[in-house]
This record gives sequence, structure tokens and C-alpha cells, in this order.
Amino acid sequence: MSEEKLPTRAENYSEWYNTLVQRAELADYAPVRGCMVVRPYGWALWENIQSALDRRFKATGHVNAAFPLFIPMSFLEKEKEHVEGFSPELAVVTIGGGETLEEPLVVRPTSETIIGHMYSKWIKSYRDLPVLINQWANVVRWEMRTRLFLRTLEFYWQEGHTAHATAAEAEEETIRMLNQYADFAINDAAVPVIRGRKSTTEKFAGAQHSYTIEAMMGDTRALQSGTSHNLGQNFAKAFEIRFLDESNTLQYCWTTSWGLSTRFVGAIIMTHGDDQGLVLPPRLAPIQLVIVPIYRNDEEKSAVLPVVEQVKGLLSEFRVKVDDRTEVTPGFKFNDWEMRGVPLRLEIGPKDVEKHSVMAARRDIPGKPGKSILSMENLAAQIGSLLDEVQAGLLTKATRFRDEHIFEPRDYGHLKEVVQNGWAYAWWCGSADCEAKIKEETKATTRCIPLDQEGGKGKCIYCGQPADEKVYFARAY
Amino acid sequence: MSEEKLPTRAENYSEWYNTLVQRAELADYAPVRGCMVVRPYGWALWENIQSALDRRFKATGHVNAAFPLFIPMSFLEKEKEHVEGFSPELAVVTIGGGETLEEPLVVRPTSETIIGHMYSKWIKSYRDLPVLINQWANVVRWEMRTRLFLRTLEFYWQEGHTAHATAAEAEEETIRMLNQYADFAINDAAVPVIRGRKSTTEKFAGAQHSYTIEAMMGDTRALQSGTSHNLGQNFAKAFEIRFLDESNTLQYCWTTSWGLSTRFVGAIIMTHGDDQGLVLPPRLAPIQLVIVPIYRNDEEKSAVLPVVEQVKGLLSEFRVKVDDRTEVTPGFKFNDWEMRGVPLRLEIGPKDVEKHSVMAARRDIPGKPGKSILSMENLAAQIGSLLDEVQAGLLTKATRFRDEHIFEPRDYGHLKEVVQNGWAYAWWCGSADCEAKIKEETKATTRCIPLDQEGGKGKCIYCGQPADEKVYFARAY
Repeated sequence: MSEEKLPTRAENYSEWYNTLVQRAELADYAPVRGCMVVRPYGWALWENIQSALDRRFKATGHVNAAFPLFIPMSFLEKEKEHVEGFSPELAVVTIGGGETLEEPLVVRPTSETIIGHMYSKWIKSYRDLPVLINQWANVVRWEMRTRLFLRTLEFYWQEGHTAHATAAEAEEETIRMLNQYADFAINDAAVPVIRGRKSTTEKFAGAQHSYTIEAMMGDTRALQSGTSHNLGQNFAKAFEIRFLDESNTLQYCWTTSWGLSTRFVGAIIMTHGDDQGLVLPPRLAPIQLVIVPIYRNDEEKSAVLPVVEQVKGLLSEFRVKVDDRTEVTPGFKFNDWEMRGVPLRLEIGPKDVEKHSVMAARRDIPGKPGKSILSMENLAAQIGSLLDEVQAGLLTKATRFRDEHIFEPRDYGHLKEVVQNGWAYAWWCGSADCEAKIKEETKATTRCIPLDQEGGKGKCIYCGQPADEKVYFARAY
Repeated sequence: MSEEKLPTRAENYSEWYNTLVQRAELADYAPVRGCMVVRPYGWALWENIQSALDRRFKATGHVNAAFPLFIPMSFLEKEKEHVEGFSPELAVVTIGGGETLEEPLVVRPTSETIIGHMYSKWIKSYRDLPVLINQWANVVRWEMRTRLFLRTLEFYWQEGHTAHATAAEAEEETIRMLNQYADFAINDAAVPVIRGRKSTTEKFAGAQHSYTIEAMMGDTRALQSGTSHNLGQNFAKAFEIRFLDESNTLQYCWTTSWGLSTRFVGAIIMTHGDDQGLVLPPRLAPIQLVIVPIYRNDEEKSAVLPVVEQVKGLLSEFRVKVDDRTEVTPGFKFNDWEMRGVPLRLEIGPKDVEKHSVMAARRDIPGKPGKSILSMENLAAQIGSLLDEVQAGLLTKATRFRDEHIFEPRDYGHLKEVVQNGWAYAWWCGSADCEAKIKEETKATTRCIPLDQEGGKGKCIYCGQPADEKVYFARAY
């Protein structure tokens, strides 16, 4: 790491983000425009995200599989909205084994089509349903403006694809997985998200309707952090996914798809990060605590290091790193691990050794208020509690920040103002025209129609016509 | 599943393999020629392989990361042997976002080049070394003759890429990872492998030398099951991977790479499978035991099912499946799970309920000799022992089969004969010419020069010239 200061968030939020992602060694630019290398520290974070999600998928009856990277171009063309949505962003293989291919192959931007094709082969009877499959995969979308984790040509995600016998079951699954995402985001990532429905304009290309979890970043912009789509019978009809029901009648299936990607790493960085760098939630942090030995001479060193090893042994249930570098000072190490967002730091020096204690410093509370002295007795339990406190503290802080930046504008003039530094929560008549005008005039898009809302009736914030639902408007990533 | 019989291995080994892979729902053909869909049962097996390997990689100090799918064509051209080896099998993206690309992008066939490029950015000093990174990824090689798991256009693997300060450390790493592969193959997959060095002809394109673990399949053909390459300074020189050593002199790194792929699933199928179907080693089997309830009427059913649930609860440390299908008979279920290779079957009927016992049937020992009655007391421990016995039994059986099919031929005439139904272990002078002639005349290639050999001197089995080492010759997948 360099000792240069990070740009502050107030100075330049996007420079802060870009510098931090690279300096913390989460990711780096690849030699191909818009592609990224996820470095070991970033990948370890993603692996923890994967495991938190995969556990939830398996607990709700899903299994993993792997479908091919290459999709015949003709498959994408079978669902009209889908091809319109994706064709501008495709990477296409035209040469294989030195020969020009008869049919070009698309590098998957998402897998509804190829999976739909396979499901049409596998599903015969109602006994085969539901099919509940997920895959962890890389996908490619030829984006023009890219940014590490947030928008890259290639990214990593999971995509769940399910098939059901009835419309109701498909809708139930769509909401179930949305809820799993929200549970993960809130309880593991400490990212308070709002569950809602996407507008028709913002929904997935080919879906009947789409749901999303939306999070507010540190600059108040919104980040779509996971989506769950009810595909109705659109793909079932395009790919002939049919089953014989109990009365032996051939029926089309009802399908869903849902995905969460490495973009979520960006959500974690921008929800919790501060001017010192990353702040990682303990449940997902690759390193939950770092131990920094402190000594000035060989005598102190030989007193301190055995205790460091002893403490490490006591804390084997946690993800612990001992920073035993000799070429840098303890102060340098403090800054370095703060920048990397490690939730807890333990300092162990000769005085701590004498007193049978260690000094703990919380990443989320800077300076003295975040420090405490822990006795060596029952150390693991104390560390467990501190990590829980950090985890809970991050969620509280992020929720407060979000709620302080959500406004219910009086009128359209007020909306224009509040979306400069927050979200507007307002009645909307549902017309794509009002939505487009607001976007054009304010750069704020409809983020979601929240599932949890008070009900009642109001007037559209733009056109004044009657409105049944409220929606969040915000500038978004 | 269909009730049709599998082809026997003796009738047609490759038909047996192809039918079994699909019928057991391990994998299916994708709509793109040579690509495969790994179905949930096959992917669960691969996930267990991944976790067994990943544990070993992490225990030996490695970390995971993710490098991009797309590699600029010019990168491959930087290492002469490498581009010669891989250029006939490349898939090439020439169109992105609707435009023809200035420089075509290769879909990675392996990642030495792109990783070498990144290492040249990241490594500055001896303090940065060693770099010990692995990635789990999909790769693409445009193969003409493909077969599920064994050779597919896209496959899944891990590829480790490490950089070191000295030649000795790189060699040590290469052997260390070869040993990890062998340990995994023998102890988790019950696949007895032989560790050895590849001949110059058979080594990885760009390596200084390559090591392999070679396994014998049920038809006596060899399968290269994992490889570990010492790349010397070839890629370091091509990509300028350099570091300042302790005396401040700029040095080229020494690099290694090592990979094991979904091909290993093929190794498991063909090492242990029999005419009834798969036989999966308990440590890797997605389902370690299946419980089949047996009843003829509602009264029996209401006696049996609660015990089935109770037994399932007692065995929560294992991967257990209860087959509660009502539309098929117990006999059908027995065949079905045998075909799918589940190591143990428990049958629970009214008599078992009365006697507080269950009937266990081992997959690896057909019929009565493989059956035993287990009391409900201490059931988990008994199951644990039985699974250990199956695991050990599979390794013993496969090792015996292999050793019975390895021959030390008297002369070249004899070699020609034995490689029709086995491997030949013979002196070889090391000349590529003798190797080529033997291949041409017998279809047997050099599989490996085993690390464990007696030493001494002999005469080349082909030309009679002095030879220092013995080598395995075999027909191979």
C-alpha cells in the first residue's frame, strides 16, 4: 500500500471509490477494457458472500448446476423483449478452432434462454416440478462505461432459474428469493435494503415483473443490489417448457429467475466505507481481526510474540491475521488495516502482556471511544460480542443515514431539490411518460415501488393524476 | 430414469460410459457442439471435489482470486511454445457491443498469459514473493472429438499460478501441488494414481517440465487426472515478471501452474463404475446413503415412516436422502440408486421396525455379502464405519485392478501385446523418436516417468540403447 491519503468522499466520491478498491487490493483493471481482476482480498469477500447466499439457497430447496458459457445467437432471438434488451451488449464468438462458425455464439449475458432450452428437454410431468436450480457463473455484457465491481464487461454472479406448475407458485418463489436477498443484505452485509417492484420501464427484459432490493450508497445514490423476476410463461412459451399435469393435459410452465452479483461488493464498500477506507461487516470480512504485536527491542519482542501466538490460538473460531511484518511500524499497520476495513484490531505490547490483557480497537468507531481493554480470560467470548456489536452498529448507522436522506417531497419542485442529495418517496400514477420526464429533468429514476407501503390514494408527484402507489425516485449507479 | 439396462462395460465401454453419464443425470449435451451441461447431481460431486481440493490449497498457503475470461490475442503470442500449443483450439470473440473489435479476444484456454501480465504489475520486491494464487474457472478449448467430462469445449477447473524467487522454490511448489493432487485422488476419490514426469513431447506448452497423476480406467486406458508444471522463467521472461532481490538486483521470477478439472469426474466414473452403474466414493458422493422405506399397506406405512424420519435425524452428520416416492416400487428404487452410485442403502420395513434394526446394503459389494443388519443403537457410528469400509474397499479394489494390468514387457513384441489390455512399464532411452514410433505402431503414449522408481540402468524397449529411467506406456483418453 502507499502512504498517500485517500481522496475524501466529500472531495470526490468516485475518486475515493476507485482509489480505495485498488489500494485495498480488492480488484484491479484487466488489460481488456472494462474487465476486472478480482484480487485475493476481494475474492475472499465474494466467497463469504457466496457462502452466505448458497446456504440460504440450499435451505430453501435449491441445487446448483452449470450451464454453458456459449449460447447460439438464435436462442436469444426467441423471446422478443429479451433480445431487444440484450443485443446491444453482446460479445460474440465468430471463430472456433481456426474456422469461421456457421452460427455465431453469444457469450452468455444471462442464461434464461439456454436453461429454458434444457428445461424443455428435462421437464415432462408435474412430478418433475418444481425445478429449483441455481448456478454460480461469470457473465459478459458489453458495457461502455465501466467501473470496478459496479459495472464491468465480465462479472460474477449467481442466477437462479426455476420452473413451476402454477402462476401462484412462481410468484411465491420470486418473492421468497427476494426475501432471501433482503435477509442476506440486512443480516450478513449490514446493508439496509428496501424490497420493491420495478416499474415496467426498469424491469428485466423478458420478465412479467421484476422485484429488487435497493440500497443507498454513501453519496445517497441508489444501487440495485439484487433482483428477482417472475417470468410468467414468456420463456416457457418461447422454449416450449411444458409438462403433463395430473389430468394428463399439456401445460406451459411458469418460470422465475433471480440474481445477485459481484456488484454487491460495491454496495458493501459504498454503504460502510469512510474517509479512512473500507469498513467491512464482521460476518463477511475476510479478516475479522488483525493482531498487531508492539515492541521496541528484542527483550520486549520475546515477551510479546509468544502471547500473540497464544491469543491467536484462543481465537481460532475467528478469521484472524497476525501482522508480523518487521519492515513497517505499528502505526503504518494500524492505517493499513483500517484502510482494508478489518472490523477489529488487537494491539499486544509489553504492558498488555504484564497485565494479562489486550487492547481492542473497533474499526467502526474511530479513536479512543472505539477502544477497550480486554482481559485474557474468556477472550473469545468478548471478541464474539465485540464483533456482534460492530455488525449491529454498522446496520444501525447505515439505516440512520438512509432514513435521513429519504424525503417525501411536497411537490415536483421539491422532488427536484431532494434528489440532489437523497431519495424522494412520492406518489406516482404509474405512467411511463411521467417516469421518463422525471428522469430527463432530474436524472432520478424510479428505483422501486416498495412492497411495504401504507396504502391509500394520492396524486402523482409529476402530473397530479390519481395514484395508487408510492415509489422511490433517485439517481442510481 | 429409464428401466432399460445399461450396456455392459465388456460389450461397449464407451457406450456404457456415455449412457451412464446421462442416465445418472450427471451431465447432458448442450445445444452447442461439444459443450456440456453439468446437472445438479454431477455438480454436487464436483462441489465436493472442489471443497476437498480447496481445503488442501488453503492449508498449503494459497488464496483464491479471479482473472478475466478474455485475453488479448497478442498475449498468447508472447510465449512461443504456448501459442503453438494452443492456437489450433481457440475460441475467438471478434464482435463486442455490435462493433468489430480492433484486437480479437481469446476466450481463455488457460490463464498463464493474463496472470503473468498481472503479476508483472503486482510483483516489485522479494518481499512480495512467493505469490500463491489459485482460481476456480471455466476455460474453453475448441476440441474436435468431445465426450462428457473427459473432453468438452468448455470445462471447469482450478488453475494455480505461483511466482517464486528461486528455481528451487518453484520446483518444490510444483512437486508439493502434485502431491496434494495425489493425496486427494487416493484418499478422497479412492483413485490410485501414479505420480510422474511427462516426456518432453507430452509436457504443457510453455513449461520447463510437467508432472502428472495418471490413473487407470476400467478398460485399462490411462487418464491424465491432474498436472503440475514448472514453468521455469519462460513466462516470467515473456511477461517481464521481475523483482528486486535482497541485494537490490532485478531478477526474473520462477513460476509454476497446476490444474485439475471436471475431467476428474470421468476418472471417478471409470475407476469405480460397474455394469449396474456408478459407484461413488463415500467422501465425495453427493448422497452418502439413501433410505428406502418398505411397506405394503397404510398400517405398515404408518409404522415405518416415523422410524425413517427418526433414522434420518440420527444420521444428520451424513449426506442422506430419503426416497419417499410413491409412484415406483422399492425394487425400482434399489436399481435407481445403485445406478447412481450411492455408497450405502438402508432399507426400513415393518420387520426392521419391530426388531429396532435397519438393513444396510453396500453398493460396492453386490447382493447378500454386502448386506448387514444394524441395530438402532449407536447407528451413526456403525454407518460411519461402513462408509469407511466402502471407501477403503474401493481403493483396494482399484489398486488391485491397476496392478494386475501393469506389465513389464520382455521386449517390444511383448509391449505391443500388453498395451492392448494394460499398461507397459519399460525402460526408455528418452528419445522422442522412439516415443513417436511406439505411438504410431501401438497407439500407446508415454504416460509418465514415475517419481518412485527403482533406479539402475536398462536398455530402451524400442531401440535397445542405454536407458536411465522407466516409463509407463499406455493407450490414453
